[in-house]
Amino acid sequence: MQDPIAQQIELLKRGTVEIYRESELAQRLTEAAKEGKQLRIKLGMDPTAPDIHLGHTVVLRKLRQFQDLGHKAVLIIGDYTARIGDPTGQNTTRPMLTGEEIKSNAQTYFDQAGRILDTSPDKCEIRYNSEWLADLALADVIKLTASMTVARMLERDTFDIRYKKGDAIGIHEFLYPLMQGQDSVAIKSDVELGGTDQTFNNLVGRTLQRNDGQPPQIVITMPILVGLDGVQKMSKSKGNYIGVTDAPADMFGKVMSIGDDLMENYFTLLTDVPKDKIAELTDPAKTHPKEAKVLLGKAIVEQFYDAEEATKAAEAFEKLFAQKQVPDDMPQVRTPADEITLAKLLQHCNLVNSGGEAKRMIKQSAVSIDGEKITDPQYPVTPTDDMIVRVGKRKFAKLVVN
Amino acid sequence: MQDPIAQQIELLKRGTVEIYRESELAQRLTEAAKEGKQLRIKLGMDPTAPDIHLGHTVVLRKLRQFQDLGHKAVLIIGDYTARIGDPTGQNTTRPMLTGEEIKSNAQTYFDQAGRILDTSPDKCEIRYNSEWLADLALADVIKLTASMTVARMLERDTFDIRYKKGDAIGIHEFLYPLMQGQDSVAIKSDVELGGTDQTFNNLVGRTLQRNDGQPPQIVITMPILVGLDGVQKMSKSKGNYIGVTDAPADMFGKVMSIGDDLMENYFTLLTDVPKDKIAELTDPAKTHPKEAKVLLGKAIVEQFYDAEEATKAAEAFEKLFAQKQVPDDMPQVRTPADEITLAKLLQHCNLVNSGGEAKRMIKQSAVSIDGEKITDPQYPVTPTDDMIVRVGKRKFAKLVVN
Repeated sequence: MQDPIAQQIELLKRGTVEIYRESELAQRLTEAAKEGKQLRIKLGMDPTAPDIHLGHTVVLRKLRQFQDLGHKAVLIIGDYTARIGDPTGQNTTRPMLTGEEIKSNAQTYFDQAGRILDTSPDKCEIRYNSEWLADLALADVIKLTASMTVARMLERDTFDIRYKKGDAIGIHEFLYPLMQGQDSVAIKSDVELGGTDQTFNNLVGRTLQRNDGQPPQIVITMPILVGLDGVQKMSKSKGNYIGVTDAPADMFGKVMSIGDDLMENYFTLLTDVPKDKIAELTDPAKTHPKEAKVLLGKAIVEQFYDAEEATKAAEAFEKLFAQKQVPDDMPQVRTPADEITLAKLLQHCNLVNSGGEAKRMIKQSAVSIDGEKITDPQYPVTPTDDMIVRVGKRKFAKLVVN
Repeated sequence: MQDPIAQQIELLKRGTVEIYRESELAQRLTEAAKEGKQLRIKLGMDPTAPDIHLGHTVVLRKLRQFQDLGHKAVLIIGDYTARIGDPTGQNTTRPMLTGEEIKSNAQTYFDQAGRILDTSPDKCEIRYNSEWLADLALADVIKLTASMTVARMLERDTFDIRYKKGDAIGIHEFLYPLMQGQDSVAIKSDVELGGTDQTFNNLVGRTLQRNDGQPPQIVITMPILVGLDGVQKMSKSKGNYIGVTDAPADMFGKVMSIGDDLMENYFTLLTDVPKDKIAELTDPAKTHPKEAKVLLGKAIVEQFYDAEEATKAAEAFEKLFAQKQVPDDMPQVRTPADEITLAKLLQHCNLVNSGGEAKRMIKQSAVSIDGEKITDPQYPVTPTDDMIVRVGKRKFAKLVVN
């Protein structure tokens, strides 16, 4: 049987991009197990953008894995800088927020993240970083900034690109990664999670903790989730996202819209489906892509609602999907508003040549009204405007009531 | 007759490298004259190196000119960073000082600068910058750092060179110019003086004052004084300096050791000798270089002592100088310890061929004892060991008493 720590590592490695360092993580997990203590797993939250979409859940799901192994999530609300905003007034992603706005946004975030995380107090701690950053005097800032060189800071990809392009970088921007690092010092984090766009900032935490005499946190980076368009990262502003508060039908429908080549990524990062099962589901020779996508959609909806809602969402989608197959130029048929059996309606619309054909087609499940299949020839239909009657793949009629 | 402000400007421009901007200085002087108010002329002092040499007096003399025009010197003691020292521990020019050390160093500086400045309270104000810097919180630092870009900071010559060489620049080093600029905001300076090595820092003050809604200070840069070696800047560590507490004889002698080509620079930056007079003194066709140098030496000694001390220093130098012309391998002559006339001594030492030649040479001022010329043949000499008797340029004797 496998060593339990090695098992944990295998679980925690799933979907990660990089672990700084895996050996340290193994050691830290071993120590925690031996001493029966919780590791402190840090995750920073941006109080200016509280709404969570599936892109955020990639990291939250990793955090939940740590919780399920007994460890504690420490959520950091970056309220200190949010109260300042962008001092140059040029960066619209750094609006200045009031204390009330920050509290309300943090609550929204907490409510939404709670759909992924275990929010019981022994598994989850929430800290506002003004708690320690507000106490820093200029002398502390000098010491903090002395721990990093200009060259190392400019190596950070976002700075590097802007500097080479000749775009202005305010010196205060060099302070933010250091402040994030100081958060790790203050809460004595064992592990920090983040997207790959946070790698640099999170590694600063290691440096500052080392300078402070703490064992440096392990940094685990997760991939940035690609949005529904399959090209750009998932983000609210790009409209290519699935929000965790989306209705089940919307969630499911959005999953169904992704390209087949995104499925493996979504299965890995957004579900618990085991690796070998994912391989089977994403091999078109073994599983029809649509079938796999339905499973993916259900698995995602289930996480935020339940199995029943997931099934309902899938069914609703099927109906909508079927409706969508309707051509735009189908013949319009004038009909009385009176109730009529389905078989008679087909004849009235000239969709069949006889009552016998009508009954046969209905019984063969080849007939639908508004995307819903009906197999009883005596089914009573009350015609309404724009009702769509379909027989087989290509015969349609749109009703216009007299 | 010349406009009085234009006259002031002409005086204040003497020896400067650059004025940012001369037009603003004229305007500020005009306003001050009209409103009968003092301008505040800022000068920063490094509390880690309180001893002043002539290099420092270049700026102090400019400050004194402003005082003499009625304005107020504001000396800033940079105690805030001195208490921190270099947080990386690598920069030995930034030792960490205690409050006591800083106070004592500031006193030393003040005592020494007082030999140039008018230290009466209505003409001189002393401020410790911890007064305002200690109150800055991280939020203030963020705002402060947001006023400058990384690119602009890296344009500063010292950073530029180090960055291109790949030498480490700590991010905290970016804070120092901003703190110096904040000093200008805090004391509302009208003019800041400094060497050309401070140009960047002092211009930062203009930016920060403008951001604060103050009229930006005028920055006047003075050249860095070349040391006695004529090559490197005057500095204590290089040993090529004249300290303001040097004894008159040392001051004078050090001035006499400089190369002729340094004289114009020293006359301009270290004395009040008028321009046209300097031109005359430094033209070898009009003035013998040694004569000019003696005048320079006296003018400098006079500033720190008085005319009498200056003359005494010059005379002592002459004597020493004459002694120095003595060869190392001169003949030693054994002599009784009894008093003897100078003419007889010359004969005894075989420095002349006859009593007549002895008298003639003595009367022609060609004879000296220990560098001092004696013109009386009957002058009574009491021989001592190592006494040097000289006739003309090349004849010497060193006495050894029996």
